[in-house]
Amino acid sequence: MAGNSIGQAFRLTTWGESHGPAVGCTVDGCPSGLAIGEADIQRALDRRRVGQSKVSSARQEPDRVQILSGVFEGHTTGAPIAMVVYNTDAKSSHYEPIKDLYRPGHADYSWDAKYGFRDWRGGGRSSARETIGRVAGGAIAQALLATADMQILAYTLALGNGSGVTGDILFAENFDEAEIERNIMRCPDAAVAEQMVERVEAARRSLDSLGGIVEVRARGVPPGLGEPVFDKLQADIGKAMFSIPAIKGVEFGEGFGVAALRGSENNDPFVRRPDGGVGTASNRHGGILGGISTGEEIIVRLAAKPPASIAQPQSTVDRDGNPAEITVHGRHDPTVLPRLVPIAEAMLALTLADHLLRQRMARV
Amino acid sequence: MAGNSIGQAFRLTTWGESHGPAVGCTVDGCPSGLAIGEADIQRALDRRRVGQSKVSSARQEPDRVQILSGVFEGHTTGAPIAMVVYNTDAKSSHYEPIKDLYRPGHADYSWDAKYGFRDWRGGGRSSARETIGRVAGGAIAQALLATADMQILAYTLALGNGSGVTGDILFAENFDEAEIERNIMRCPDAAVAEQMVERVEAARRSLDSLGGIVEVRARGVPPGLGEPVFDKLQADIGKAMFSIPAIKGVEFGEGFGVAALRGSENNDPFVRRPDGGVGTASNRHGGILGGISTGEEIIVRLAAKPPASIAQPQSTVDRDGNPAEITVHGRHDPTVLPRLVPIAEAMLALTLADHLLRQRMARV
Amino acid sequence: MAGNSIGQAFRLTTWGESHGPAVGCTVDGCPSGLAIGEADIQRALDRRRVGQSKVSSARQEPDRVQILSGVFEGHTTGAPIAMVVYNTDAKSSHYEPIKDLYRPGHADYSWDAKYGFRDWRGGGRSSARETIGRVAGGAIAQALLATADMQILAYTLALGNGSGVTGDILFAENFDEAEIERNIMRCPDAAVAEQMVERVEAARRSLDSLGGIVEVRARGVPPGLGEPVFDKLQADIGKAMFSIPAIKGVEFGEGFGVAALRGSENNDPFVRRPDGGVGTASNRHGGILGGISTGEEIIVRLAAKPPASIAQPQSTVDRDGNPAEITVHGRHDPTVLPRLVPIAEAMLALTLADHLLRQRMARV
Amino acid sequence: MAGNSIGQAFRLTTWGESHGPAVGCTVDGCPSGLAIGEADIQRALDRRRVGQSKVSSARQEPDRVQILSGVFEGHTTGAPIAMVVYNTDAKSSHYEPIKDLYRPGHADYSWDAKYGFRDWRGGGRSSARETIGRVAGGAIAQALLATADMQILAYTLALGNGSGVTGDILFAENFDEAEIERNIMRCPDAAVAEQMVERVEAARRSLDSLGGIVEVRARGVPPGLGEPVFDKLQADIGKAMFSIPAIKGVEFGEGFGVAALRGSENNDPFVRRPDGGVGTASNRHGGILGGISTGEEIIVRLAAKPPASIAQPQSTVDRDGNPAEITVHGRHDPTVLPRLVPIAEAMLALTLADHLLRQRMARV
Repeated sequence: MAGNSIGQAFRLTTWGESHGPAVGCTVDGCPSGLAIGEADIQRALDRRRVGQSKVSSARQEPDRVQILSGVFEGHTTGAPIAMVVYNTDAKSSHYEPIKDLYRPGHADYSWDAKYGFRDWRGGGRSSARETIGRVAGGAIAQALLATADMQILAYTLALGNGSGVTGDILFAENFDEAEIERNIMRCPDAAVAEQMVERVEAARRSLDSLGGIVEVRARGVPPGLGEPVFDKLQADIGKAMFSIPAIKGVEFGEGFGVAALRGSENNDPFVRRPDGGVGTASNRHGGILGGISTGEEIIVRLAAKPPASIAQPQSTVDRDGNPAEITVHGRHDPTVLPRLVPIAEAMLALTLADHLLRQRMARV
Repeated sequence: MAGNSIGQAFRLTTWGESHGPAVGCTVDGCPSGLAIGEADIQRALDRRRVGQSKVSSARQEPDRVQILSGVFEGHTTGAPIAMVVYNTDAKSSHYEPIKDLYRPGHADYSWDAKYGFRDWRGGGRSSARETIGRVAGGAIAQALLATADMQILAYTLALGNGSGVTGDILFAENFDEAEIERNIMRCPDAAVAEQMVERVEAARRSLDSLGGIVEVRARGVPPGLGEPVFDKLQADIGKAMFSIPAIKGVEFGEGFGVAALRGSENNDPFVRRPDGGVGTASNRHGGILGGISTGEEIIVRLAAKPPASIAQPQSTVDRDGNPAEITVHGRHDPTVLPRLVPIAEAMLALTLADHLLRQRMARV
Repeated sequence: MAGNSIGQAFRLTTWGESHGPAVGCTVDGCPSGLAIGEADIQRALDRRRVGQSKVSSARQEPDRVQILSGVFEGHTTGAPIAMVVYNTDAKSSHYEPIKDLYRPGHADYSWDAKYGFRDWRGGGRSSARETIGRVAGGAIAQALLATADMQILAYTLALGNGSGVTGDILFAENFDEAEIERNIMRCPDAAVAEQMVERVEAARRSLDSLGGIVEVRARGVPPGLGEPVFDKLQADIGKAMFSIPAIKGVEFGEGFGVAALRGSENNDPFVRRPDGGVGTASNRHGGILGGISTGEEIIVRLAAKPPASIAQPQSTVDRDGNPAEITVHGRHDPTVLPRLVPIAEAMLALTLADHLLRQRMARV
Repeated sequence: MAGNSIGQAFRLTTWGESHGPAVGCTVDGCPSGLAIGEADIQRALDRRRVGQSKVSSARQEPDRVQILSGVFEGHTTGAPIAMVVYNTDAKSSHYEPIKDLYRPGHADYSWDAKYGFRDWRGGGRSSARETIGRVAGGAIAQALLATADMQILAYTLALGNGSGVTGDILFAENFDEAEIERNIMRCPDAAVAEQMVERVEAARRSLDSLGGIVEVRARGVPPGLGEPVFDKLQADIGKAMFSIPAIKGVEFGEGFGVAALRGSENNDPFVRRPDGGVGTASNRHGGILGGISTGEEIIVRLAAKPPASIAQPQSTVDRDGNPAEITVHGRHDPTVLPRLVPIAEAMLALTLADHLLRQRMARV
């Protein structure tokens, strides 16, 4: 009820605050016999870690994960898998002066309205450090998906310009998968990636931040995953994506573009695939029809807002409603995009792992 | 696990197929003492009913609801509220000739891939008639929200042109709330509504269909609703909206537009409201920060694809993968927008009712 | 949260009041492809129906079930199965005079304390008619279990004497399975059954009621069902059994008798079974170890209290706490045992069906 | 689905194996603002700790708890509370020689049947060390209940004699609450406690173990807790109790004794209480009617089997079904009763805390 878990069959629970002793998670429902180790989790965490590049926050956390349960002799046992990452570089002093002010664009006020008070140190539970648990759990989900030959891939598709003009957004124009992990923007277009880095640096210099779009894909998803009514595959993926901080829009396949299409244009004709199975000639539907996977690639796009923490003065109020000016210091990212990539992958992996298991119960 | 329920505290389960004996739902978790009657539910169902206008399907269903439990002497008792609507105008003969063909854009193939076979009559469980249960349940949710002075409002914001050019979409330009229920498009701009009707009729004449955008708003939502991590208010609303057939995109507040903004532009400054409370000077965030409502208006937009059922020949395959041509007869809508309006309202109401109850457990 | 559903993978929701228009249920999560029809459900309902014999209530309800969804051409489709039984013989006039009095042993007071008011007609939601939905859902569960060669069997093991002396309870001494459905007590010992009937008739003549014990068994349960910590098989069965009205005690295998045993006596030695598998030489454990089925017969016993509705005057209070005398007229059973038999079978079947499906997710 | 969580509103998840790095738990759904600290948890853990006395196992574990999240400045924040206890005294060498043998009365075989293999060190996930998470979570539940003036109390009611004769069981005859924590049996009758200790020592000397009965009570429970159908208060308590290792029977109030009573004897008359509220003149019902608390004391009894780990040779089979003799060394309790007391209290507290929160949603 308090919403710190996601998934029904493959279920992740995260816990921990930015400046508490540790952050972590529990994965419940992972089948027994899956080969997994701390190195697999660590590799995933290293991809989301801060302090990676000049486009990211300067907080230095090694983020070393320990598996505390559920794995024996290199394999999952069917018992819950608890994982912990201790916080080592928390600097609460940055937050002390502004603990009674509401940072614009942040959860400070709404959290107070809900709970009466909050752990204000580093954003507390609302910190991006909460996503460590997601990425750790997602690594296990990805290992499970790999046993069924599914792969997840995400990348920075577009970066805003800060002009407020939609047409000016920088979009990746070429897609070179190998390029993604080679540049710090995780953009599949090397040339565009360079321009993106320049924009991010300019935003940082002007004490500002930029939004953008991440695209996530799943390949090898068998047809039949997803439940046809409320737990449609796009509904559960949609929820997973909207649970990531900073996401303001989610779309599948043609997405908002369908508003401009006729049915005769938008429908993807069914065809016999070379392997004899059924497929579609095009993939405007984005891999899901009627809430159930079709076997085509699942395609999701996420709109990420510019990070709310900016180092320039903003007007706000304090807890009592008195007007105030606030300047948010601390170590913040001028864009979340590169770090959003592994988080979005984790959320898609978690959702697909859940539905992969649930699908086992569909037929007598 | 099979996904026919939504909500945790206020929980709706729907059941029923398009051409089965009936469709219906159960609402579990509605508090005792809420004044409600069949007339309240009927009013809501009448708004979503087909056969309402020249822009909708010709199937003639009275959709008379019966409350079978959970209400005594005009008030809810705390027991589950079961509601049923019998199907009276099902014509399965339209579907018999195409029962082994996969209709493009529909759930036929993916349902077969999941379950091995399906009730092919009228789309079976995947029919839009399933949404009757949503609207019936949503009417109870709205009654509950009304006790806390919350209102839900939806309308057709935009209709596609079928040209495939995004820039050509017809958007409502003026907002006159009173206008919404006066025109058959449920568009708040009377002049634009007229143009929309012309487009829909043209699409019908060319045996085609059109997509568009619906906007949904909630007013009077108290700050504090939503759970801060996976059950963020936008995550649960996002899931609810993506569970509606035909929805390919969902966005909040500025939505995908945030990709173009700087943090300094996008952050909404906190201010003291005239009533002494805390609010924001603008509402680009769409009423939710950190997954928790802020007290500002909640604003959601949904992209609806053009209905997949079109009366022109399309290429497809049969169950064995053999190429075939299909023409989908039956009584279909050339656009879902006007009927999507009450469904979207219902889904937002259900989600808010759920979180309104859950919020009661936030503090000692 | 409001507790009208049970099961996670195979999930039953019941609804309906004794004197409302109908009672019914929805089964969600039943796999597709299970052969089932109204006749299967009806047969189960006929076994629990009132008015069957001189040891049961005189209310005459045909209890005709209709399947409203989820079954197509004789098989489940994977969609939720809604079932309804209309109430036809409700006589609320018996309850009108006592609607403001709290019947001893009933839920009247505690329901008022919870919800503020109640549907007082025939016990409302707390009526034994609620169990119609359980038996209907249980019939589907039993059909699913039968596909895996599991059988459920229950019977009256013991009937109280009303003397308050435990040693005087009448226990079945011989076990003849064929006898169970031949006598109105559903006791596997024909001679004891006769004595039981005499006792029940004597209790009815003295305007009183009797308690007793029902035993339930499951055969053919494969080893491996149940989850090892909170959802131990005995925990979920225990919950299912304690959710039946009138049950005050539940025990497995040796049950409370284990308190008198040494470990060396109580442990069942493991042996190789004739079929090569592993079994136990004795079955004091009752078919479950560590919360997981062992493959041995599951054995559960339920203690049922004497029905609270008795036709003699009792002292009580009214809603305002004023002392009063109450005589509960209406048509009541002097013992619940024979009707408890199919209800207990249903609850065990529902729980095993749930764990049978859940077990599919245990291994990679 | 994998059953490592319990509770819906107040939800505990435990994780960890006997000889893994640590055991722990997460409490999700605890309201904000509850005063709690590590000392409160530690006090509860110290009560369940092994190595406490001559009637308990010799494993020496300090069981120091750390709160890793969810508490800020001495109060819960509404975020999940993660707690960890590192294992320090695990001696897996005792288990190595018997890792391929199935210990009679243990989960070894059924776990293998479910998952294909198991962490055999010290019982792995099936170890009593799993209950550390329950007691830690229960301590928070008790703190929450205390804010509503509820108290939980458990004690050893009876110890078996090992003769197999039920009539020979040693029952506490006098009830002196202050005595409970004074003797190592946690029995409220000092004289009987002495006899119990003698029996336990005799059992240990003969390399055997003894069963018994624990009684648990809750006082100050307001009327209205519990949901009337499947989540009856006794159903959820019953599940919680049956989830404790070694429990073979659970009963409420008169329990199995109701089988011997007439309705006229068993019904508790309602009366006006001195404070003006409604109560019952007697409490045979054990504090719950119709699944909902009445305000009377809740009374539950648990039958605990004699511990399965005994140091004498037993006959069994190995993983391949080959006959074998096994002697279980290690550090085991000849009776679980004294340590069962705090565990049973924790499970009752967890269940009541859950229903206390759920009750907040019962009325508009």
